[in-house]
Amino acid sequence: MRTAVILMLTIFLPPALEAAPPPSNGIPLPATYKHWQVLGVSHRDDNRSLRAIVGNTTAMIAARKGDTDPWPDGTILGKLVWKDSRHPFWQPAIVPGALSHIEFMVKDRKRFKETGGWGFARWVGDKLEPLNNDGGKPCFECHKAAAKTDFVFTRPVRLP
Amino acid sequence: MRTAVILMLTIFLPPALEAAPPPSNGIPLPATYKHWQVLGVSHRDDNRSLRAIVGNTTAMIAARKGDTDPWPDGTILGKLVWKDSRHPFWQPAIVPGALSHIEFMVKDRKRFKETGGWGFARWVGDKLEPLNNDGGKPCFECHKAAAKTDFVFTRPVRLP
Repeated sequence: MRTAVILMLTIFLPPALEAAPPPSNGIPLPATYKHWQVLGVSHRDDNRSLRAIVGNTTAMIAARKGDTDPWPDGTILGKLVWKDSRHPFWQPAIVPGALSHIEFMVKDRKRFKETGGWGFARWVGDKLEPLNNDGGKPCFECHKAAAKTDFVFTRPVRLP
Repeated sequence: MRTAVILMLTIFLPPALEAAPPPSNGIPLPATYKHWQVLGVSHRDDNRSLRAIVGNTTAMIAARKGDTDPWPDGTILGKLVWKDSRHPFWQPAIVPGALSHIEFMVKDRKRFKETGGWGFARWVGDKLEPLNNDGGKPCFECHKAAAKTDFVFTRPVRLP
């Protein structure tokens, strides 16, 4: 019971106390994103960045049921992106350096019907400067490469 | 309210329905680990593996307060480790392949006083075969490289 109370506090208290940055492409920063669960991890060796992929409750339920073709309306997927750094005590490990950006895909088939049913939002750097790029159309252009998987690159990890 | 109820269900229901694997070094698999929040990410280019680092509620509260020197008793840190794979639609991205293992560090200064106050546990592969290696002493030997940071390699990420 005590754990449940602490959990509710950690989930619901912080957003109310923090100032939100301006929206990106008309999408507000999801207030609870720091508390979402893990859907995946990736490392890009072209632009040398490490990523944690997280999801809101709708996303996690869909992913665990394998119900992601298409992802349901209400899904929000988040990508937390850091520049590569080397671990000071363990050189073969590449670990998060400076924050590059955080970005989100929001599923709403009606609202975002021109971009595959997804809204695209990004905030850059520690100051969370919002990106506004023609309603996310350039984002969607790249995501067309993942058209077979509802325009989502991330394949949710399965844990035993 | 509905979100809170769904959240409680996703946190508390699944463990009761799943069979637990045998303990590792006398430590049981943390029942709710799939639902923990993200503390970090890493990629090892020596053994080609990708990692998500997650923490229980005690760990997350300590990390967000910067209260990790030392980490408090009750902390559990989890590392979810996959073999490298290349994304089929986006070659520069290294993504999780087969599950390598999941491993945990459990802080209890009394119980684990011979290994820096930490218990070490690991379950290997999709079958979650438990590792039993002399109470985790070989794990501790390597973790001595991180003695300056309470034997923990992971530096929790800070999100704005």
